[in-house]
Amino acid sequence: MTTSRINLNADLGESFGAWQMGDDAALLQIVGSANIACGFHAGDPAIMRDTVRLALAQGVSLGAHPSFPDLQGFGRRAMQMSTRDLEATVLYQVGALQAIAAAEGGRVTHVKPHGALNNIACVDAAVADAVVRAVQALDRDLILLAPAHSVLAQRGEAAGLPVRFEVFADRSYLDDGQLMPRARAGAVLHDAAQCVDHVLRMVSEQAIVAHSGVRLPTRIDSICLHGDGAEAVASARQVRAALEAAGYTLAPLDRLR
Amino acid sequence: MTTSRINLNADLGESFGAWQMGDDAALLQIVGSANIACGFHAGDPAIMRDTVRLALAQGVSLGAHPSFPDLQGFGRRAMQMSTRDLEATVLYQVGALQAIAAAEGGRVTHVKPHGALNNIACVDAAVADAVVRAVQALDRDLILLAPAHSVLAQRGEAAGLPVRFEVFADRSYLDDGQLMPRARAGAVLHDAAQCVDHVLRMVSEQAIVAHSGVRLPTRIDSICLHGDGAEAVASARQVRAALEAAGYTLAPLDRLR
Amino acid sequence: MTTSRINLNADLGESFGAWQMGDDAALLQIVGSANIACGFHAGDPAIMRDTVRLALAQGVSLGAHPSFPDLQGFGRRAMQMSTRDLEATVLYQVGALQAIAAAEGGRVTHVKPHGALNNIACVDAAVADAVVRAVQALDRDLILLAPAHSVLAQRGEAAGLPVRFEVFADRSYLDDGQLMPRARAGAVLHDAAQCVDHVLRMVSEQAIVAHSGVRLPTRIDSICLHGDGAEAVASARQVRAALEAAGYTLAPLDRLR
Amino acid sequence: MTTSRINLNADLGESFGAWQMGDDAALLQIVGSANIACGFHAGDPAIMRDTVRLALAQGVSLGAHPSFPDLQGFGRRAMQMSTRDLEATVLYQVGALQAIAAAEGGRVTHVKPHGALNNIACVDAAVADAVVRAVQALDRDLILLAPAHSVLAQRGEAAGLPVRFEVFADRSYLDDGQLMPRARAGAVLHDAAQCVDHVLRMVSEQAIVAHSGVRLPTRIDSICLHGDGAEAVASARQVRAALEAAGYTLAPLDRLR
Repeated sequence: MTTSRINLNADLGESFGAWQMGDDAALLQIVGSANIACGFHAGDPAIMRDTVRLALAQGVSLGAHPSFPDLQGFGRRAMQMSTRDLEATVLYQVGALQAIAAAEGGRVTHVKPHGALNNIACVDAAVADAVVRAVQALDRDLILLAPAHSVLAQRGEAAGLPVRFEVFADRSYLDDGQLMPRARAGAVLHDAAQCVDHVLRMVSEQAIVAHSGVRLPTRIDSICLHGDGAEAVASARQVRAALEAAGYTLAPLDRLR
Repeated sequence: MTTSRINLNADLGESFGAWQMGDDAALLQIVGSANIACGFHAGDPAIMRDTVRLALAQGVSLGAHPSFPDLQGFGRRAMQMSTRDLEATVLYQVGALQAIAAAEGGRVTHVKPHGALNNIACVDAAVADAVVRAVQALDRDLILLAPAHSVLAQRGEAAGLPVRFEVFADRSYLDDGQLMPRARAGAVLHDAAQCVDHVLRMVSEQAIVAHSGVRLPTRIDSICLHGDGAEAVASARQVRAALEAAGYTLAPLDRLR
Repeated sequence: MTTSRINLNADLGESFGAWQMGDDAALLQIVGSANIACGFHAGDPAIMRDTVRLALAQGVSLGAHPSFPDLQGFGRRAMQMSTRDLEATVLYQVGALQAIAAAEGGRVTHVKPHGALNNIACVDAAVADAVVRAVQALDRDLILLAPAHSVLAQRGEAAGLPVRFEVFADRSYLDDGQLMPRARAGAVLHDAAQCVDHVLRMVSEQAIVAHSGVRLPTRIDSICLHGDGAEAVASARQVRAALEAAGYTLAPLDRLR
Repeated sequence: MTTSRINLNADLGESFGAWQMGDDAALLQIVGSANIACGFHAGDPAIMRDTVRLALAQGVSLGAHPSFPDLQGFGRRAMQMSTRDLEATVLYQVGALQAIAAAEGGRVTHVKPHGALNNIACVDAAVADAVVRAVQALDRDLILLAPAHSVLAQRGEAAGLPVRFEVFADRSYLDDGQLMPRARAGAVLHDAAQCVDHVLRMVSEQAIVAHSGVRLPTRIDSICLHGDGAEAVASARQVRAALEAAGYTLAPLDRLR
C-alpha cells in the first residue's frame, strides 16, 4: 500500500567553520533523508563532506539544500535575485554537493530549497520556475522536495519533475495551506505530543489540517523534522516512533515507491 | 605524429558580479581549452554559466580552475589550509562547474588549480596530493593540467591521473624549471615576438628553456596564454598563428591524443 | 547668496581587490564630494584608503557610502534585513571609513546610502530611520546626503540631522519626485547636453522637474554625477562647466553654508 | 603598588549570525577587558553592538580584536597579505568597532590582533609594524595588548605605543617565551588548579615561567583567559578568585596605572 511508506527529512550540515549547529548525529538516527547545506547559508566544503559521509553510513539519502548567498542571515532573509542568477546559484550549490557525494561513493537524490528561498519559491512562480529549471537541467530523476500545496510543488509537477510533498511536524497551517507566520501565537508547536498528533492526523487523513481545522487533501510523502535543541530532537524521535507504531514504514525519499 | 598536436589554454570567466576582467570573447577565439574560475577567486554562478556557454559555442573544452577562498586577493595569496579542507574545497568548486556545464550540455574535462594554490601545489607534495585526490575522487578521466617539471604534475602521474604538461608563453624559467619570480627583471615577457620565440623553441625542443639557456627536457602538451589587456591578447594571437605556421595542430586538451 | 553655492557628488572607490571600476581620477577633478564604498558592495580596506588619500589631495570631501552586504550584487539587490541589523551595519561601515580617513588626516563629513539600501530608505520610513539613527549615534554634525523629496531626507530632517538634498544629472523623475525606473524608456539621460539642461533647469528653478514637466519645489544642494564610462565622465565634466558658467560656486558638501 | 593591579582579558563576541560561540555572559563577570571580534573572523555588526553594550554594562573595557579576513577558518589560518593590505585591514576593523562603541556611549581603549594574525605579528617584524602603524595612525593612546616577549610587543614599544604585556593562563611556554605549539603534549593546561598555579607563579615572579622551568623576566599586565566550554569558564573563575585572594586588584586595561 503506497500510503504505508513515508519519509522523514531534516536539515543537516548547518555548522560552518568553527561554529556548530544542530545535533546531526541524533537526527541521522531518526530521519531517512538529509537536506544538506551547500555553503551559501551554512556548511563549508569539509563540513559538507563529513555530513555526506555520516549520512551514507546511516543509509540516509542525500539532498541538496541550496540557499540565497547569505551566511550572516543564515539564508533566512529575502534577497531580490534575478531568475538568471537564481538558477545558476542553485545549479552551483547542487553541483558542489553532487561532487562531494560522488567522492564519498554516494549520490544526491533530492533537492529542497532553504529558508527564504524556499518560502519565496512556495508562493512566487518565477522563483519556483528558476529552481525547477536548475533541478531539471541537472538530472530529470532528481526529486524535488516541496511543501504540499505550494507553488513550488505545482511548478515542479507541471515541469515533469518527480516531486515529493512534505508537511511540517511542528508548524501550524493557515487555511490556504501556507505555514502560519512564526510571529503568530500557535505558529510553532513546542510540545512533542502535539507534534505527534498533528503528524498522525495529517498522514492518516492525507491532508494538511490547518489550525482552524480546515482540511486540504494532499498526498503526504515526507515529514520535515527539526533538530535544534534537545527538545526538538526528542520530539522528532517521538514522531518517528508514533509513525512506526501506527504501521508506517519509514524510507529514504528515493525509496518511497 | 603526437608532437604535432598542441593545446592552448587560458584562464576565463574571471569577472565577478558587476566587475569585468579579461577579454574572454577574444581569448575564446584563440585557445582550445578554458580554465574557468569557480567562484572562490573570481566568477559567480551566472558568470560561470555564461562562460561555459560561450566556450561550448566555440568548441573550447571546459576546465575547472579552483582556488583558495579569497575573492579580495583574487586567489593570489597563500593560505594555510589543512589538506582535509583543501581536498573538499577542490571537490566543491569542480562540482559546481560540472553541474553548470551539464546544464549547458557540456562536460568538465580538465582541472587546473589557480594562483597561489597552483604555486604551492607545484612545490608542496601534501598540497599536490590533496588536489590529486579530489580530482581522482570525481572522475579518473579528468585531466590534470599542470606545469611541466612541477611536483603537482609528478604526483598526478604517480596517482595514475591523465596529466597534461603546460608551459607559459610569457614567463621566464629558472634552471630548476620553476617560474622566475615576477619581482625579478625579465620574469615576464612583454614583447609578442619574444613570447613567440620562447614558445616555438620550447615546443620544438620539447624542453623548458630557462632564462640561462639551460634545457629541461619534457613533453609539452599545452601553452598557457594570458588575456589581460589588448597587448596580451595580441601576443596570444601571434603565438597561436606562429604555432599553426610551424605546422602544429591546435586541439582541446581532451583531443590531444 | 545661498543658492549660488552648489555641490557635485559621485560614488568612488568602487573597485574591489583585483577588479577595477570607474574612473576615479577623472571624477575627483570634477566633484566636490565623494561617496566612498565601504567594503560591503565594493571597496576593500586598501582601496578605501587609496581613495581617501586621492580625495583629500584634491580637496574633495569624504562621505561614507554604506550598503547591504552584497558584493556579488554590487549592493543593488534588496535584502530583507532587520532594522537592528541595518543600523549596526551602517555604523560598522561608516566607522571603518572614519578610521581610514583619520589615518590619512581627514574626516568623514557625510553619509549617503548606496544602491538598494538607498532606494528602500527613500520610500520606507523604518529603513530610513535605521540609517538616520546610525548616523546620529556617530556624530550629530555628519551630513546626510539624500534625494530631494525622499522619505530618507524627511526622516533625517525630522531627527535634526543636517540633510543635504541631491538630484541626479542623468535620471528622469516621476511626478511624485521618485526616479523613473531604469527599465522605462527615457529613464536615463545618455546625452551630455540633455543632462546639462536638466540640471540647469532644476537648480535655477529650485525644483525637481519631472519627465512630464511637473515641478516639485525643493532646495537643491548637490548634483549626483556618474563616472562609469568615458561618456559619463565627459557628461559630468560638462555639467560642472555649465554650472560654473551660470555663476554657481562649486563647494564640498561641508562648505555649502 | 603598580604590580598589585592586574588585568584579565578574554576574546568575546565570537558568535556570527545564527551561530553561537563562547559564554560571553559568564566571561564578562570575570574579566576586566574584552577583545571583541570585528567581523573578519567572527562577529557581525549586530553581535558587535550587543557585545559592546554588555561589556559597558559590566564596566569591562573595550578592545578591538582584528583578524585576517577568514570567517571559514575563524582567523586561525595564516594568509599572505601585503603589509599595505594588512594595515588598512586593521584600520578598517578597529574603526568599525570604534563607531559601534561610540554609538553605545563607549570607547575602544585597546587593540589585540586575533589568531593567525597575532601569531605572525609575534614573530614577524614587518607584520608587527603594519599592526603598530594602524593602531598609531588612529590614536596614540590606544593600548596595544601583546604577549610578553613578543616581537609585536617590542615593535609597539619602540614606536611609542602604550603596550600592555599578557600571558596565557592555560598555555605552556617554550624557553624563548613563545607558546608551546598545541600539537605537543602539555601545551594546553586543562586543569584549573594547574592554571591557577601557573598564573600565580608568573605574576608573583614577574616572569614567564617556561615548561622547562626557565624564567624570562617581564612585566605582566594582563592574563588571557578562555571561555570555550564550562570547564574553561570555571577555570577562568578560579584564576580570578586566586588573584584576588593573593591581594591583586583587578582592573580594566586602561585603568592599570
